[in-house]
Amino acid sequence: MAENMTEKKAPLEGIRVIDLTRVLSGPFCTMMLGDMGAEVIKVEPAKGDPIREQGTLRDGFSAYYASFNRNKKSVVIDLYSARGRAVLERLISGADVLIDNFRPGVMAKMGFGEARLKALNPRLVTANVNGYGSTGPYVDRPAFDFIAQAMSGLMSVNGAEGTEPMRVAQPITDLVAGLYCAFGVVSALRARDLNGTGQHVESAMINGAISMMAYLASEYFTTGELPARTGNDHPLVAPYGLFRARDGEIAVAPSNDVILKRFLDVLELGHLMEDPRYDTNDKRFARRPELNEMINQAVGRDTQEAWIARLNAAGVPCGKVQNLAEALNDPQTQAQEMVIEVDQPNHGPIRMLGFPVKLSGTPCRLRHPAPELGADTRAVLEASGFDADEIEALAKEGVIGGNWIAVRGSTSSP
Amino acid sequence: MAENMTEKKAPLEGIRVIDLTRVLSGPFCTMMLGDMGAEVIKVEPAKGDPIREQGTLRDGFSAYYASFNRNKKSVVIDLYSARGRAVLERLISGADVLIDNFRPGVMAKMGFGEARLKALNPRLVTANVNGYGSTGPYVDRPAFDFIAQAMSGLMSVNGAEGTEPMRVAQPITDLVAGLYCAFGVVSALRARDLNGTGQHVESAMINGAISMMAYLASEYFTTGELPARTGNDHPLVAPYGLFRARDGEIAVAPSNDVILKRFLDVLELGHLMEDPRYDTNDKRFARRPELNEMINQAVGRDTQEAWIARLNAAGVPCGKVQNLAEALNDPQTQAQEMVIEVDQPNHGPIRMLGFPVKLSGTPCRLRHPAPELGADTRAVLEASGFDADEIEALAKEGVIGGNWIAVRGSTSSP
Repeated sequence: MAENMTEKKAPLEGIRVIDLTRVLSGPFCTMMLGDMGAEVIKVEPAKGDPIREQGTLRDGFSAYYASFNRNKKSVVIDLYSARGRAVLERLISGADVLIDNFRPGVMAKMGFGEARLKALNPRLVTANVNGYGSTGPYVDRPAFDFIAQAMSGLMSVNGAEGTEPMRVAQPITDLVAGLYCAFGVVSALRARDLNGTGQHVESAMINGAISMMAYLASEYFTTGELPARTGNDHPLVAPYGLFRARDGEIAVAPSNDVILKRFLDVLELGHLMEDPRYDTNDKRFARRPELNEMINQAVGRDTQEAWIARLNAAGVPCGKVQNLAEALNDPQTQAQEMVIEVDQPNHGPIRMLGFPVKLSGTPCRLRHPAPELGADTRAVLEASGFDADEIEALAKEGVIGGNWIAVRGSTSSP
Repeated sequence: MAENMTEKKAPLEGIRVIDLTRVLSGPFCTMMLGDMGAEVIKVEPAKGDPIREQGTLRDGFSAYYASFNRNKKSVVIDLYSARGRAVLERLISGADVLIDNFRPGVMAKMGFGEARLKALNPRLVTANVNGYGSTGPYVDRPAFDFIAQAMSGLMSVNGAEGTEPMRVAQPITDLVAGLYCAFGVVSALRARDLNGTGQHVESAMINGAISMMAYLASEYFTTGELPARTGNDHPLVAPYGLFRARDGEIAVAPSNDVILKRFLDVLELGHLMEDPRYDTNDKRFARRPELNEMINQAVGRDTQEAWIARLNAAGVPCGKVQNLAEALNDPQTQAQEMVIEVDQPNHGPIRMLGFPVKLSGTPCRLRHPAPELGADTRAVLEASGFDADEIEALAKEGVIGGNWIAVRGSTSSP
């Protein structure tokens, strides 16, 4: 805090988040809140968030964990014990936000139902990232990204014509739900600034997935027809998609007639726009194979790089299909600082993705790397008014924990 | 405003957004700001946002337009004319947020560079949704969802093994960039509450797409190996994916050994977890085909519905691969109000997707349907201090416009 006295305050400066989330959707949300300046206190069981063991470990350490838990503190509390829940209650009393990604109802079973939380802390914003929402017939079902993709209709349109419905390779229903939740929490904090009281925010994976259907949904509502799986072809526009240059494919998206004319002009095929066989999108769509063949013949005469330079100069959106290494090493990605290197104490430098939202005045930044398990238990409890005897007693009983216990008295915690 | 005097204020109540965005990424962002209570003033050219002509039209009206422009007002201003830009300048002076999704630099060319905007209105939050960001070698390239998918590495992992890289069917790079932008704008408004000044927010499609790589990126950073395209199979876990019930497929996601044991127990195949051929994930992964065959034989003995009920009861995430109609008519989707019907004046009821973020105290709600082109030009200008003579003169010159002109004096605008 002190370091920033003369600088501008971050958007969430002074906001304390108690974070009970695990694995991906919730931790992605609280990471964004931390990136925006909130103090995020990750409450973990003695075994830690399962994500600490996921992905390829290096020196026993998970880069997956590191990359979704930067800018957080770690506190170990046994929430299965009544005393542990009493510790949590004191943390909640002094917090601004409480987030979990348990199934709806789990918090109430732990003794933290809505009424109790309101009594404890009427200004508290509570948030839950879940699978299906907290009303409706599926409310008690366990959720998972792949299932949300299946049930939301998302898989039904993904993939090539004539093949089976295809999941999206990225865990997008987790991530989109986390992102909606972060938007909801900051909005609720602003409402609290206006109204003086907190409220509950909910973000369901399946709802977020449905919201991604965008114009596919509005088309269905208008026509009653199901969208087809069309792979890399556009369902409504032709030509569009991947074309074969001499040394590989290029992706070209001529989304309207103006841009299509530019594309064909660069290929010296501009006359096709006047040809009565191809002078409307409907006709081109019907003759897509022969049109694509003509375009491939032209594109095949030069390299990817040459076409990409020429087409971009002409204002035609295009690019290479890059693999992940090419994408992450792309000079544009580097210029945008979308790969950052974090010095992880005891584990050396770890690369992770950067900050996708750029704020000019109070940019997201790395304030501290992901925490060792329980590294902040003592400091956070002290700051919440627990005295040394209480902390010692709780630690002896195994109600609280963390690696800090081993080093007590040697070096002081952060 | 008056209607809410006794209610709680919405998160963005009192926030005026000048919205220059077109088509999808930007309008998706400003729709979310409107859903959260902001007054969104959509500035359109005389021809309107191109999205008004996109998708299947009914009575000349686009449901695609309607579903991304609810809770907005429409003002027609010719920004190619100096007088039009002077009108915009006065609107900006009284606004809280200005958003565009032009390429970086276009606003400056129009006379609205950063310094000028700061001089006009130091509390203004400005935001730009763009393709590649405003620094780096590709800053001047035109962008499009398909190209952002290609270049970000997203396509490289999507699709089945042995097939070409596959775009995701949803326009997710547009939508994710819009969602990040909404999160950034609300965060910047909160920073303004703390610091007193506005700042610039930027959200690039390609950066948002890269951020969706999640653990695929952290695995690449750790191992240096490119993720494979694995279609509906999980790249690391087996069994996992689609299995054939008697009447169709079910999606099952046993993401760890505990859940896998539950899954196999329900199938009466629990003994496989003890079998030395299958007792670790690595072994199961290596013998995936034979394992999947045993599971398919068991699953084939009953219906989708029966297995889904049984597996959910046992705590195994599973579900049907639903097409869009099934997904939107699912009782869960209905219970979550993810499909809403909006009475669109002159066009009757229009169905659209609902609100994915649920706030208990100040929920997102439909305050008004998407506007007719220029319906609010007069009212907005009056509220911004333009007098009747000025408005008449601007309208005569064609600097401002809208359907309201035809009905002037007959019925009053909203």
